Amino acid sequence: MKKYSTIGTRPRRFDAREKIVGNAKFGADSTFQRSLWGKILRSPHAHARIISINTDDAAALLGVRAVITSADFPTITPGSAFDSQNHRFSRDNVLAGRKALYMGHAIAAVAADTREIADRAVDLIRVEYEILPAVVDVLEATEDDAPLLHQDLLTDSLGTEASRPSNIASHLQHELGDPEEGFSQADVVVEREFRSATVHHTYIEPHAATVEWRRDDQILVWTTTQGVFTIRGQLAELLQHPQGQILVTPSEIGGGFGGKIASYIEAPAALLSKKASLPVRIVMSRSDEFLATGPTSGTRIKIKMGARNDGKITAACAELFYEAGAYPGSPVGSGAALIFACYDIPNGRIDGYDIVVNKPRTTAYRAPGATPPAFVSEQVIDELAEKTGIDPLQFRMLNVATNGTRRIDSSVHTSINCKKVLEAVAGHDHYRSKVEGEHVGRGLAMAFWGNWGAQSSCALQVNYDGTVTLTLGSVDVSGTRTSLAMQAAEALELDLSLISPRMGSTGETGYNDVSAGSRTTVAGGHAVAKAARHVIAQLKDRAAMLWDVPVGSVAYAKGRFTEGKDNTMSFDELAAKSAATGGAITGIGNVNVEDWGASSGAHVADVKVDPETGKVTILRYTIFQDVGTAVHPVLVEGQLQGGTVQGIGWALYEGYTYDEDGHLLNHNLLDYKLPTFTDVPSLETVIIEEPHEQHPFGIRGVGETPIISPPGALANAIHGAVGARPSSLPMTPGSILEAMGVL
Amino acid sequence: MKKYSTIGTRPRRFDAREKIVGNAKFGADSTFQRSLWGKILRSPHAHARIISINTDDAAALLGVRAVITSADFPTITPGSAFDSQNHRFSRDNVLAGRKALYMGHAIAAVAADTREIADRAVDLIRVEYEILPAVVDVLEATEDDAPLLHQDLLTDSLGTEASRPSNIASHLQHELGDPEEGFSQADVVVEREFRSATVHHTYIEPHAATVEWRRDDQILVWTTTQGVFTIRGQLAELLQHPQGQILVTPSEIGGGFGGKIASYIEAPAALLSKKASLPVRIVMSRSDEFLATGPTSGTRIKIKMGARNDGKITAACAELFYEAGAYPGSPVGSGAALIFACYDIPNGRIDGYDIVVNKPRTTAYRAPGATPPAFVSEQVIDELAEKTGIDPLQFRMLNVATNGTRRIDSSVHTSINCKKVLEAVAGHDHYRSKVEGEHVGRGLAMAFWGNWGAQSSCALQVNYDGTVTLTLGSVDVSGTRTSLAMQAAEALELDLSLISPRMGSTGETGYNDVSAGSRTTVAGGHAVAKAARHVIAQLKDRAAMLWDVPVGSVAYAKGRFTEGKDNTMSFDELAAKSAATGGAITGIGNVNVEDWGASSGAHVADVKVDPETGKVTILRYTIFQDVGTAVHPVLVEGQLQGGTVQGIGWALYEGYTYDEDGHLLNHNLLDYKLPTFTDVPSLETVIIEEPHEQHPFGIRGVGETPIISPPGALANAIHGAVGARPSSLPMTPGSILEAMGVL
Repeated sequence: MKKYSTIGTRPRRFDAREKIVGNAKFGADSTFQRSLWGKILRSPHAHARIISINTDDAAALLGVRAVITSADFPTITPGSAFDSQNHRFSRDNVLAGRKALYMGHAIAAVAADTREIADRAVDLIRVEYEILPAVVDVLEATEDDAPLLHQDLLTDSLGTEASRPSNIASHLQHELGDPEEGFSQADVVVEREFRSATVHHTYIEPHAATVEWRRDDQILVWTTTQGVFTIRGQLAELLQHPQGQILVTPSEIGGGFGGKIASYIEAPAALLSKKASLPVRIVMSRSDEFLATGPTSGTRIKIKMGARNDGKITAACAELFYEAGAYPGSPVGSGAALIFACYDIPNGRIDGYDIVVNKPRTTAYRAPGATPPAFVSEQVIDELAEKTGIDPLQFRMLNVATNGTRRIDSSVHTSINCKKVLEAVAGHDHYRSKVEGEHVGRGLAMAFWGNWGAQSSCALQVNYDGTVTLTLGSVDVSGTRTSLAMQAAEALELDLSLISPRMGSTGETGYNDVSAGSRTTVAGGHAVAKAARHVIAQLKDRAAMLWDVPVGSVAYAKGRFTEGKDNTMSFDELAAKSAATGGAITGIGNVNVEDWGASSGAHVADVKVDPETGKVTILRYTIFQDVGTAVHPVLVEGQLQGGTVQGIGWALYEGYTYDEDGHLLNHNLLDYKLPTFTDVPSLETVIIEEPHEQHPFGIRGVGETPIISPPGALANAIHGAVGARPSSLPMTPGSILEAMGVL
Repeated sequence: MKKYSTIGTRPRRFDAREKIVGNAKFGADSTFQRSLWGKILRSPHAHARIISINTDDAAALLGVRAVITSADFPTITPGSAFDSQNHRFSRDNVLAGRKALYMGHAIAAVAADTREIADRAVDLIRVEYEILPAVVDVLEATEDDAPLLHQDLLTDSLGTEASRPSNIASHLQHELGDPEEGFSQADVVVEREFRSATVHHTYIEPHAATVEWRRDDQILVWTTTQGVFTIRGQLAELLQHPQGQILVTPSEIGGGFGGKIASYIEAPAALLSKKASLPVRIVMSRSDEFLATGPTSGTRIKIKMGARNDGKITAACAELFYEAGAYPGSPVGSGAALIFACYDIPNGRIDGYDIVVNKPRTTAYRAPGATPPAFVSEQVIDELAEKTGIDPLQFRMLNVATNGTRRIDSSVHTSINCKKVLEAVAGHDHYRSKVEGEHVGRGLAMAFWGNWGAQSSCALQVNYDGTVTLTLGSVDVSGTRTSLAMQAAEALELDLSLISPRMGSTGETGYNDVSAGSRTTVAGGHAVAKAARHVIAQLKDRAAMLWDVPVGSVAYAKGRFTEGKDNTMSFDELAAKSAATGGAITGIGNVNVEDWGASSGAHVADVKVDPETGKVTILRYTIFQDVGTAVHPVLVEGQLQGGTVQGIGWALYEGYTYDEDGHLLNHNLLDYKLPTFTDVPSLETVIIEEPHEQHPFGIRGVGETPIISPPGALANAIHGAVGARPSSLPMTPGSILEAMGVL
C-alpha cells in the first residue's frame, strides 16, 4: 500500500502556467507606480583610495532626482549596536567608504526619470581615486608584502590576534587522532595541490529591486531574493530602521543558488527613494552581476592522504585557502567540514583560511565551499585506489563513513547514507557496463552534504468553502509552492486542488530563513505539518462543540471528521460552519528545525577526451542520491540535474579571468563560458529514498548535493581516458593537454 | 490613576502622512501592469426587456480586447448551489439578464487599450430594448396595476406565498402587548405619514477595481471596498470559483458608509480579464455611482402613537415601506427594529415592507434603515410632548428604554444607555441655554443603534528586533489601523511606536467581515486582544524555557517578563531569542463577536428659519453619544461629526429626483445637493464613556449612531422656529414653506 496520497505524485507546478506564458512577475517587473530608475557608479579600479566624489554635475542634470554616496547612510553612533567591523564591512560593500576594493565596487548612485538619464548622470559623477596595488591570488594575498585590503583585519592565526594587519581574515583548524602517526602507518601516500577558479552563479535573472521609502517611514521593497526576511534584516541594519517598518515582498525569482541572499541594491534604492520621495528601481546588468555580486571563492587546496595496501585510509590532511573577496566570509568552514566527510578516517588535520583579495565579496553558491574540496579529495581517493590496486568503488566502500563515524572536525555522523548510495552505484547498469573505446574513461565521485534546518513559518487559512490558503514566508526558488502545498494536502488529508499556496511578504508570516541550504522543502514541511495539526485540532474542537461531545472522541481521516457511529462531517462542511462556531480557522506553523538531516550522493561519468584538442565529451552521466522522500519526483530530478549541470560548468568551463592589475576581463556571458545544451548530455537520475526519521514526511534536502560531485567524477573520468589529472578548475582543453604533457 | 496607557491618547494616525502628501494608493491607483481599461454600457431606460445585444462593431474596433454580456457568466447548473433566486438577482444586478430594471443598469462591458477606445466601444454596442412602464414610488409599486419588476417574486404578505407575483419582496411584522387597548388608554394620539427621499452615500472616491484573471485561474483583485473577504465571497459566487483561488487586496478607501460592500465592477472586470488575458481596470464615474450603486432606500412611513396626559406612551404602531430598488434587500428590518427602540412602550405593532421599484438596488448606508424612522418617531414624540404639555426631554426621560426593557420586536435591551445620554443633555450648557430670537427653534432627538460584532481575524508577528507587525483583515475605513494598533499596544503593554499595522489581502488572515456596522474597532479589538494574549503566552513559554522554570511562574507587565527575584527580560530581548527558542512568534486572534453592544446618542440643534425663503440655518449643534471607551478621542469626534454632517445632508439637502418614466435627473454633484462647509456649523461633541462590559477595553461602535438623529432634531427645531412640521426628507426650503402654508 502506498504510504502517501499526494507526496510522490507529479502534479503540475503551481507556478508553471504563469511562467510559461510570461506573465509571472520577476524582480524588474516593479509593481510600484511612478518609479524612478536608479543606477550605480562602479569603480574601474581593483584597489583605490577614494579621494573625493563630486556629484554636482550629475545632480544638476535635468531629470535627475537624487544622488547618493556612502555619506548618505545613517551615522554610526560610537558604541551603538551598529558600531562593529561587520556592520562597516556590510555597509562598505554596498557603497564604498574610503576605498574601492574591487573592480565594480559601488561608489555612488543616482535616481532619474528615465534609464537613459540615469546612465548619463553616473557618467557625470567625478571620482578622484588614488590607485593602489591589487592582489587577486589567494596565496599571494597571504604574503608579507601583499597589498593590504583592510588596516583593521588583525586575525592571522588560529584564535589569536596578530600584532599587525593581514589579509587573512580567519584561520580554523580541525584535528583528529594523530595525523603523523597515521601517515607512518600508510603504505601509500598521495600529496597534491589544486586550485579552483572564482565562479559565478549566473542565475538567468539579474538582481532587480524597487524600493519606496514612504513619508510615514515605512520602507516598501519589491525584490528578487532568496529570502525576504533576510533582505529585511539587512536593510534594517544598513538603514538602522525598525523591522516592523520595512515590508519586503518577493518577486518570482529567476534563479538564486545562494547569490540572492546578500542585499546589494535595496539600500541604495532606499536612500535614493528617501531623497527623491518616489519609488526607485534598480536593475543590474549582467556585467554588474559579474563585477559586484557573488561570486563564490576561488580556492587553493593542499592535500595529503595515506592508506594501507588493504585499502584502509590511515590519515588525511588538508590546507584550504579560500578567497573571501573584498570582505571576510568565504565558505571555508564548510569546505573544511566536508573535504573528508564521506570517509571514516582515524587521523587527520584540516586547516582553513579565509583570505581577503581584491575581488567582489564572495557569497554562498549551492553547497557553499563543498565542490572544490570534493574535486580534490575524490581524485586523491581515486589515486590511492589506483596505487593500492583496488577498484575505486570498492576502495570507497572500505572507507565509507556511516552513522556513528567521528569526523575530523570531531562531529559524529548521524544522517549519512553514502554506503546505500555506493551499493546503488555498484548495482546499476551504468557502473556495471564496460568502459569501451579509445580515450574513454569513467569517473566516480561521492558527495555528502548536511542540510540546513532553521526557521520556517507558514499560515494555513481555512476558507469557508473548504479551500485552504497556504501563505509561505519562503521564496519559491525551486517549486516550493508545489512541494509545500503537497505536504499540506498530505498533512490535511485533502486533495491538492483545495490548497492555494502563495509567497507572502515579510508582513504575512513569522520569520523565515532564506530559501537556501536545501532547507525550504524540509523545514517548510515541518512548518506546514505543524500548521496542519493546528488546523485539525481547531476543527476537532469545532466539531466537538457542534456535536456536544468531548473533543478527544472526534477523529479525523481523509477529509472527514467523525465521532461515534452517527456524527460525521466533511472538512468543507465544517469549514462552512466556522463563523457559527467562533470565527475563522488559522493554522500557524512556526519552527526552528534542529534535526537537519543530510543528503548523500554519488556521480558516475563516462567521458571521451580528444587527445589532440583536449576537448571533453560527456558520454554518459548518472546521478545517484538519497533524497529521503521524493515529494515531487520530477522536481527532485530537476534539482539533481540542475545541480549537476552547474557542477559540470565548474568542472569544464567556468572561471573569472583577471589581468595583473586585478581587472576582471570576462564579465559577460560571451567570455565567461557556461555549459549549454550542446555541452550537457542526458543526465540519468537514480533516486534513493531512505526517509529522514526526524522529518514528518522523511524528506531530505536535495538541491545542493548534486553540484559537489561533477568536477571529481569528471576529473577521474578524464584520468581514466588519458591518464592525466588536471589540477585546476575549470579543466579546460588547454589544462588537460598541459596535464597530458602535450602542451 | 489612568486605566489605560495608550487607549485614550491622541497619536498621529498611521495613514495620515501618506494621505496628506497624496501618496496613498486608492482604488484607481492600480498596481497591476499593462492594465486595460474597462467600461460598462448602461441602460438608458428604467425598465426594458433586452431583445438583443450586438457587440460585433465594438469588438471589431482597433484596441478593443474583450466584450462581455451576462452570457459570459458561468452557466448555472440546475439544482446546484448557484441555482437560486438570490444568486440570479445578484448576478443580474451586476450584468442585466433579460431585463434592464433601472436607468444605469449594466448591460455589457468592454476592455480596451485606452480609456478613450473603451468609451467609443461601448457606444458601438447596439442593444434592442422593449421599453416597459416603470415604477419608482414605493407605494405605487404595491398597487395591483403597478408594472411588475419580477415575475417570480411571490411573497406579498406575511409568511405566505401569494398566488400571483408582486413587487412586495417581503413583509415582516412585530407585535407587543395589545396596540388597540394601548391606544384606548391614550389621552392624546398622533397619527402621521412621512416620506424620505432616496439618497446616496456620495463617498468621495468612486468604485474602482483592477482584476487579473491569471492563466493559472488565480483571480487577483485590487479594489476599493469595505471588505476584501466580502468581495471575495461575492466573486466566488458570481464566477463559481474557489475562494482559495481569489486574492482580494484592498486599496485605501475614500469613504464607504455601506456603499462599498456590494460588488459591482469586479466580476465584469474579471470576465473581461479572462477573455483578454490581461488585467482590466474599471473606474466608475460619479454618474455611474448615482445610477448604479447604492443608494439607500427612500421610504414611506405611517405612524401612530398614543400617550397619557402624564406623559406615558401607551401604544405605538408603524408601517414602514422601504424601497429595495430593483432587487429585494432594503434595510426595512433594521428600520422596524429601531423606530421605537429608545422607548419603553407596552403595546405596539410594526409592519415592514421590502418593495422593489425601478431604481438601483439599495445598499446599506450608515445605520442602515434607521434614519427615516427616527425622523418620524422623534417628531411624533415631540408632538406628544407638546400635546401633553411636557418638556420634550422630560417626556423622553419618562419613556426612555433601559436595560431589561422589552422592545416591540420582543427582544430585550441589554446595552442601552439613552438615559445616561439624556442626563448629559439635560445638564449641558446647550440644552440649559435659552432659545432666543425670532424664527429660532431648538430640537432634540434621540438615537439608539445596536453595533454589529461578527468575525474579525488578525495576526501579530513579533519581529526579532522587538517590533510587532499587526496584519488586519479589515479595511481601514475610519482610522482602523490606528485604533487597532492602539489596542494592540495596550494589550501587549508596549509603546505604540513598536506596532506596525497593515491592511492585509484575503490571503493573509482568517475571514473578516466588512468594515461596517460600527464593528471594526469593536470586534477588531477582541481579535487583537486575543492575538496579544496568544503572543504573551508564547513568550512566557519561551522565557520559562530559557530560565528552566514552570511557565506559570513567569509574569508579564509593561514590556517585561519576570520570574522570582532574579529572572527578568524585556519584550525585545526575548523577541531577539525567538530563533533560539523554537522559531518565530505569531499571535492569532480569530473571533466571532456575539456580545455586540450598542451606542446611544442624542442631538440638540438650534436653527433659524427664514420665513420668506424657507432656508434653514443651523445656529448651534451638539452631539451627545455614549462611546463606551474613546480609543482615540479625535477619531471618535471625527466619526460623530462626520455622521452628523451626513445626517444633516439627509435632513436638508439630499435626494434622488426622477421623471415620470423613471429617469434619474440629478446623477451628478451639481444637481444632487450635498452639504458643504458653508452649510454646516461647528459641531460640538460630548463623549460619554459607559464601558461596554463584554469588550476587553469597554469599546462601543460609534460610527453609525450619529447619522440617525439630525433629521429628527432639525425637524423639531424647525417646528420650534416656525411652528410647522415638514413631513418629508429632505426638508428643502420649498417643503418648509409648504408646511408653513405659505407656498
